[in-house]
Formats: sequence, C-alpha cells, structure tokens
Amino acid sequence: MSTVSENQRPLRVALLGAGTVGAEVARLLLEQSDDLEARVGAPLELVGAAVRDVTKPRPGVPAELITNDPIGLIGKGVDVVVEVMGGIEPARSLIIAAMESGASVVTANKALLAEDGATLYATAEKNQVDLYFEASVAGAIPLLRPLRESLAGDQVKRVLGIVNGTTNFILTKMDEDGAAYADVLAQAQALGYAEADPTADVEAFDAAAKAAILAQLAFHTRVTISDVHREGITRVTAVDIEAAREMGFVIKLLAVAERITEGDVDGVVVRVHPTLVPRSHPLASVRDAFNAVFVEAEAAGELMFYGRGAGGAPTASAVLGDVVAAARNKVSGTTGPGESIYTGLPVLSLEQARTRYYLNLEVLDRPGVLATVARVVADSDVSIQVVRQDGTGNDAHLVLRTHAATEGQLSNMLDGLRALDVVTDIVGVMRVEGEATP
Amino acid sequence: MSTVSENQRPLRVALLGAGTVGAEVARLLLEQSDDLEARVGAPLELVGAAVRDVTKPRPGVPAELITNDPIGLIGKGVDVVVEVMGGIEPARSLIIAAMESGASVVTANKALLAEDGATLYATAEKNQVDLYFEASVAGAIPLLRPLRESLAGDQVKRVLGIVNGTTNFILTKMDEDGAAYADVLAQAQALGYAEADPTADVEAFDAAAKAAILAQLAFHTRVTISDVHREGITRVTAVDIEAAREMGFVIKLLAVAERITEGDVDGVVVRVHPTLVPRSHPLASVRDAFNAVFVEAEAAGELMFYGRGAGGAPTASAVLGDVVAAARNKVSGTTGPGESIYTGLPVLSLEQARTRYYLNLEVLDRPGVLATVARVVADSDVSIQVVRQDGTGNDAHLVLRTHAATEGQLSNMLDGLRALDVVTDIVGVMRVEGEATP
Repeated sequence: MSTVSENQRPLRVALLGAGTVGAEVARLLLEQSDDLEARVGAPLELVGAAVRDVTKPRPGVPAELITNDPIGLIGKGVDVVVEVMGGIEPARSLIIAAMESGASVVTANKALLAEDGATLYATAEKNQVDLYFEASVAGAIPLLRPLRESLAGDQVKRVLGIVNGTTNFILTKMDEDGAAYADVLAQAQALGYAEADPTADVEAFDAAAKAAILAQLAFHTRVTISDVHREGITRVTAVDIEAAREMGFVIKLLAVAERITEGDVDGVVVRVHPTLVPRSHPLASVRDAFNAVFVEAEAAGELMFYGRGAGGAPTASAVLGDVVAAARNKVSGTTGPGESIYTGLPVLSLEQARTRYYLNLEVLDRPGVLATVARVVADSDVSIQVVRQDGTGNDAHLVLRTHAATEGQLSNMLDGLRALDVVTDIVGVMRVEGEATP
Repeated sequence: MSTVSENQRPLRVALLGAGTVGAEVARLLLEQSDDLEARVGAPLELVGAAVRDVTKPRPGVPAELITNDPIGLIGKGVDVVVEVMGGIEPARSLIIAAMESGASVVTANKALLAEDGATLYATAEKNQVDLYFEASVAGAIPLLRPLRESLAGDQVKRVLGIVNGTTNFILTKMDEDGAAYADVLAQAQALGYAEADPTADVEAFDAAAKAAILAQLAFHTRVTISDVHREGITRVTAVDIEAAREMGFVIKLLAVAERITEGDVDGVVVRVHPTLVPRSHPLASVRDAFNAVFVEAEAAGELMFYGRGAGGAPTASAVLGDVVAAARNKVSGTTGPGESIYTGLPVLSLEQARTRYYLNLEVLDRPGVLATVARVVADSDVSIQVVRQDGTGNDAHLVLRTHAATEGQLSNMLDGLRALDVVTDIVGVMRVEGEATP
C-alpha cells in the first residue's frame, strides 16, 4: 500500500530459462526497477538466470547473472522463481525445489500445468507459497486472474477461447485469401508464426493444454490435458471456409469448456476443434495471431478478453504482473488464492455435449437428393436448421447446419449418410458455436 | 487456499442500498452460499440491507434484513460493507464510518470515487481495510483488477474505453438505421436504456467519472472528474455518422486516458468525446449497450476487455467478486493493494494532446474551394490525410481527416475556415482515434 520501502529488504528474483521471454523479463525487471519497487513496496533484485547453454548470447541479461546451475541458483535464498524454460522436466523438479526452499513460483509452462498442475498446487500449499501462471494461457491477456478472482462470486457456464495464435493466423489467411491449408502453413512458417514442426499447434496439443487450465479455473474442478477432446485444423479445407462464409460464418479453432447439467448429469466437457462461429460474434473479429477468450457467466453475462497470445514482450508482461503479485504477498506475509477444486465436477465424455453441426456433402446432381438426405437426418433424431444446394453436375454439394444434437446422434446420422448412393462423399463435418441457444 | 472452513467464523456482510443491484447481490449471496464459502474459506452471512424506504418491496431480500438505519447496521460488527446506494452523500459518510469500524468496503459508486477517491483510499489505509470498486467501471467486465494487478509489471500507454451503455446504444442505432439523435434517444428511453433525464449519460458525466477512475489506475497518479475534458453526444448528427461510414469509420463515445511524453512534457490527458474509430478496430464491433475497454501497454501490446456495462446481475457479479476478495483478505488477515499514485504525473490540459480530426464543412459549389480550404489548413500547420467532396449545389460538402495536430492548431484552423466566404458552415468536428500512429 505504501510507496516507501526503505525498511523493506530487496526481494530476490531468479529466472529459470532466458530465451525470448526470459530475456525480456530480465530486461523489464532491470529497466523498470523504480516502478516495480513502488508497486511492490520493496525493491526487486534479479539474482540470476539459469540456462542450459551459457555460451549463447543473451541480450539484455547481464553476463554475470548467467549460470548453468539452476539448483545452486535456487539455493541462494530466492523469494520468487520465474520458470520460463518450458517442458515437463527438469521444469517440474526445479519448481518443486524452489517451492520447497520457500520461493513463490511464476510460470508460463502450460504443458506442465495441464499435465501435473495438482503436484505444483499441492507443493505450493504445503510450503505456503504462491503459484501464479497468467502467462500460460493467452500470453499477455489478463485472463486467469479475472477467472480466479473477479468472477469468484459468479458461476461460469461456458468458456470459448481462441488460444493458439499460429492456427488463428492460418485460419485467418485461409479466410481472407481463399488459400489452401498447406500453402498458408508454409507462409506462416516463413514468417515465423509456425514452427518447422507445427504439430503442437496445428494438431491442437497447445490449445488443449490451455483448455485444461481454463476449464479447471472456470469450474473449480481438476482437469488435465488427457481430459480434453482434441481435433486439429489440418483437415480444414478451402471448401469448408467458403461454405462457412456463404452461411455467414468463419472457422476458428476453439477451446470450449462448458458445464453440462441435464437430468442426472452434472459435469464439464472440454474440447478443442475447428468450429463455425457466426461473423457477428465477437470471436469472429479476432484475426491473425491475436487470442481471445469469451466467457459466459450466470450473472456477468458475456465477457471477452482480447490481446496478444504470444511473443516475448507480451508474455513477459503477464509474467511480471505475477511477479509483482507474488512479491507483494511476500511483503505482506500472505499468499494468494490456491487451487480451487471444491466442486469436484466430473469431466464428461464428448458424447454428453450437445452441439450444432455443419455438414458438407458431395452429392449426385439429381432430383430428390435433398429429400433423401433430410429423411436420414430426421431418422437420426437430428433437426436441420439450414440447408443449401451448391454447384451442379460433379460439383454438386449439399451444405447443412443442424440444430443441437449429441455426438451419438451425429455418428448415427453420418453412418446413414455414408450408406446413401446419392451422397458420394462427406467432405466436411464441423461443430458450430456462438449462436443463440435454440 | 483451503476449502475447509469449519473453524472459521462467518464473515458478516452488510448492504447499503437494495435497488436493482443490491437486491441481486443479496439474492446471489443467499443462493450461492456454498460456493462462496468454498471460495472464501469462510461462510458469508448477510446481516442486513439499509434502505431509505422500508415499505418498498425488495424481491429477493428477506424482509427481516431490511432496515432504514445504516449506522446501526454498520455498528453491528460487520466485516464487509457493500455500498450500492450511489450519490455522494450519505454514501461517503457511511463508507467512512464502515471503514472506521474495521469493515472493508466494496462499492460501485463511480461518482464518489471520481470526486473524492482520495479520502476513501486514505481512510482504508488508516484503518487497514480494503476498498474495492470493480463494479464502478464497465459493470461486469473484470477490468480494474487486471489494471491494478495483472498489468502491475507493465507500462500503460493509453486506454480507450466505451464505458457508457446508453450512449453506445444510441450511436449504434444511429449507425444502423441512419436515424437522427433525438429519435433514437426517444427509442432508448422507451426501451429503458436511457433515463427520462438523460443528461448524465448523453452529456458524458457518467463516462467522465469512469475515465477518471481508469486513468488513476492506469497511470498511478491522482485523477478526479474535474481533470477530465468532457463532450457529450448531443451534437452528433446523422450527417456525421454517414460521413464517417463513407470513410470506413464508426462514431463512438470514447473515454481516452493517455500518457503524453514530448520534450519536457510528461503527464496524462484524460478526455471523453465522440470519436471516429476505424471499422476494423476491435472497439468498432462493440455494439448496443455493451462496454469495452482497449488498453495499449508497453510490453503487453493491445488488450481489450468486453462485456456488459450495466444491469443488476452483471453489476452484482463484479460486486460479489470484490466481496470474495475482501472476505478472503479478512480470513488471511491481510489487505489487497491500496491507492497507487507514486508516479505523481500531472494531468495536462487538453491542448497538450495531439489527435487527428474529422471536419465536415458545408461549402459553396464552385471551383477552387478545395484549394482555398487546403491553404487555410496548411497555414495552421495541420496536414490533411484524406479529403472528399460530397454533394452539389446547396448540399456541397467537403469532408476531411487531418494528420495529428494539437488543439491549438485545430482552433486556429477553425478560425481560419470560419473566415472563408466559401465555407458556409462547419457542421462537424470530431477527433479520430484507433488508427496506426503516423
């Protein structure tokens, strides 16, 4: 509360990792030391940065702070440890060692949190230290603190997130230029938006980890990455994009976490997949590498948080916000909120979610096709919302959007459609989100 | 951190005010008591609601809790006082009395905070209690906590906010329907979006109070409503809206708070006025009564927070988030961050802001008018970005957008234009925001 901190000893901050994000964190810690001191109520002192390769240049990080001995660094009596090395090990062991030594931990490690957050939370609670991880989801966007704290008096119903910048960049370009997936991926790789091996992004492993973290915070129950249904964007075609556009939709890779309460069922479904979103929905205007998370809460209604999901400076901003929070807590001898899993809601299988579907069928160009298809759809207890016939001859398509149905009904319907002579191929099947509930 | 709270005495919550928001807070406190207890670590007990008129029905608030004795209620040993009565007095005296008695305070009172926040902060610090006010700006949108905490390690450069739902509804309808201001205002009043006396909204007093609160949090310096340059929307015409549309812009009432550093100048300008915003800007898609705040920060880049700015349930969501935070702090015997005004940045006069301008001139339909006007603009050291001539005869218009200029340059330019025979009227002058900086 006070801006006077003469009597307060400096708080010691150590970095694990000094890549793009770590170097930026170091730079900001050093450059903004006066501001940070005023905001924390004590000076922050960067005592070291542990890296694997000490010979690599680290612009912005003073050479004398670089070490390849993370355990030695933690042993120096550190108040806040910033873990930005990534990966499961040795990150997990080092975080645990840091907490055991009494340090609070700020991490951007979504993979570790989504796989074994429980261990980290338990270690934090045992040692009465903080575990903060704002940077792990949607980079710079202040999102996890609002979910954990601002919405603490509300009930979240559903979270829809664009949480992977690479895939959003690719889908945006496909939408803007009508280009094919492979061409846009190559372009994204050339621009540095996609890795040489793009699997983690395009197969949605990255988004699935973030979905697990979001779901746990939103629904106060434990969710890990293995609970998340995951589909990537590699099978999205220019035909899908165009068909979506004609219906007034755009295709986004969405992370969806929702509470399902129906009859005896009460639980959470968490899924990541390409999704049709109406162009009038706030998420539709989230373009290029931007991220956004849309939250539907009981009392608050619809909220959206938008910003940069990646990059050194944006991620460092989120890390430093957490460092300030952890340091303030050290100064006042307290800790922030810990793991909240009091609801114990089960994670349900995808089959228990009800969504709308988009279907793109290649069909024979002959009278009665629509009637035949509609009969099969109706026999699966699925109701058609919109249907349109496109093209003629060998390029005849039937594009339809259904009302809400279960995965089981969808699967029956697809089996029925495949068995039809008039349906020559099912070229696109995708879920639809963001419309007013039927 | 713990969800077990058997050993924790209930925390006593009192309401000052039980109108739309207060009644909703009471309802949620009672209905969600199990969730709130788990999140706080102690039960929350609603001990009373002080109102002026005890005879008025208050659906959702148990009759035995209603009292018209706020001082008596506060004297009952209350842990958290929720002030949702509004206005300066008696709200201020009651908040001070509550803090003096050891209660933390949650308030939605933007007018009081923008006029005399300093007294409230000082009283909170003296009594070591919390002062939270998330609901005072942009209703349900978690915005103040991110500004105070998540961006605590970053430098905010500028904040652009749509923070008044009534004026955004009116401007949206004018844009969508091409209707005149007076007609849309009448429609908004009929729908309950605007008050019978709409002054506070349409003359931007409400938005100015919120701008002061935002500016203080963003720039860590004291800002009151009297520091805010304020222009309402009553002079926005259908002609302006149409001219803006033709240039690819939409008109929004923006609250702008920005840091100005130029030469020896280092300070903050805070202003609220109708503004041209490019249709591609995220704020342009914020329609109807929705609110959004766009933040430009040094490291984080561009962020936007979007949601419902008013209404009983959304506001109650923000209030309850603060109640949970204040109650958690009571449980752990600490307080959250207090007033942060360490930068001491001065609030500069509007003259020191540089913005772009939109001008709509009614001109004579004769050759050489553009050259004459361009000469006057150039003589004021202002540079024209785009100019277009519209209409003919008595309806001839010259619409122009300038590059960035100071208010002083604008004022010279307007004097020069008024002196021209060929300019018969200056029908629109508005600032332009949200384009890439020149």
